[in-house]
Amino acid sequence: MKEDSEALVVFSGGQDSTTCLYWAKERFERVSALTFVYGQKHALEVDVAERLARAADVRWTKMDVSFIASLSANALTDASVAMDEEKPAGAPPNTFVPGRNLFFLSVAAVVARERGVRHIVTGVGQTDFSGYPDCRDTFVRSLNVTLNLAMDGRFVIHTPLMWLDKAETWALADRLGVFETVRRETLTCYNGLPGDGCGHCPACRLRREGLETYLKQKQQQLP
Amino acid sequence: MKEDSEALVVFSGGQDSTTCLYWAKERFERVSALTFVYGQKHALEVDVAERLARAADVRWTKMDVSFIASLSANALTDASVAMDEEKPAGAPPNTFVPGRNLFFLSVAAVVARERGVRHIVTGVGQTDFSGYPDCRDTFVRSLNVTLNLAMDGRFVIHTPLMWLDKAETWALADRLGVFETVRRETLTCYNGLPGDGCGHCPACRLRREGLETYLKQKQQQLP
Repeated sequence: MKEDSEALVVFSGGQDSTTCLYWAKERFERVSALTFVYGQKHALEVDVAERLARAADVRWTKMDVSFIASLSANALTDASVAMDEEKPAGAPPNTFVPGRNLFFLSVAAVVARERGVRHIVTGVGQTDFSGYPDCRDTFVRSLNVTLNLAMDGRFVIHTPLMWLDKAETWALADRLGVFETVRRETLTCYNGLPGDGCGHCPACRLRREGLETYLKQKQQQLP
Repeated sequence: MKEDSEALVVFSGGQDSTTCLYWAKERFERVSALTFVYGQKHALEVDVAERLARAADVRWTKMDVSFIASLSANALTDASVAMDEEKPAGAPPNTFVPGRNLFFLSVAAVVARERGVRHIVTGVGQTDFSGYPDCRDTFVRSLNVTLNLAMDGRFVIHTPLMWLDKAETWALADRLGVFETVRRETLTCYNGLPGDGCGHCPACRLRREGLETYLKQKQQQLP
């Protein structure tokens, strides 16, 4: 079916969503990328996302959803709140934007509907669970039902990384032929540094540990 | 419990949400009203909502969610699209804003969470079903689950009008002692006229038919 030949990828330009972008390119005839701008500290993220999308030869759209930042105070969007280096016990880290993926995926669904697209791809995952409730599989599945009920839709939300750890996500990028692109060009670091990043924020640590694990595994598998 | 003493009402200043506001005042110690601004043709709606909330002596907040208007073109938010007087067969009327209640209730949940409030009240209902999929009971229940999963929350969405027709909604307002307030001060009309409105748009017709039915029933019940 025609509507099954296209997918919309929620695309931040980080390791995860870039891997998802190429995952989608392998499966769908047409892929487009949707990048959200919401008052992040690092507007550089948006430039990185655009460059990556152009390099992947997909349609790229950015959408301003700054209203999310106005809903609550937190470390990713409010410069007056210091960022936790460690996850607080028993609570989401204060980089948590309440409802962020709820809004991202809801907006993506409306955009997809306008374009006659039903497949939506997101890089969220719960294996390296960082305390964000809206990265969990149950949340995504529940939202998928809710979106279909809200708009009489037939959306399918794909989460190729849901059960992969970071090492497996590196392996997937490698299999898709974009290991170097993901390693050098994406931006995951909370402090806004592309590639290997600052090295000490939680996102960099998780990314690096996964990379080291994957590279070690790969070396052991060599003949 | 303290968190059960307060409710947040999604409040447009129309017949339905005004009736819900007084319904909530009867049940909760504290009530606040949240009005969304999203590029409606009739900014007067917001003034009407504020006046009604002040008169009801509840905390009133307005929130700009104009991003909803940017997601798609439709008659309520885009002056270039003519409004249907009749509902098109087999399709939602073109006053449909895709995902409107999805976004309204999601934003309301984030605001409620920030304030330590878990009860959310909305005037949506499916009895006088106008073709909006996001007014249906299944949608609201599904969203309630999704919101709790998204934010590790314990939200309860109340829909006091879900199964009432317009005549029963007038009866409820009367029982709550606000029949005249709802009749004279609220704004339901798509053409922006308060009270009995323009009389010929779909919202006015529905409202008037309900009113006439209720007044007839009331008269018949007099001794």
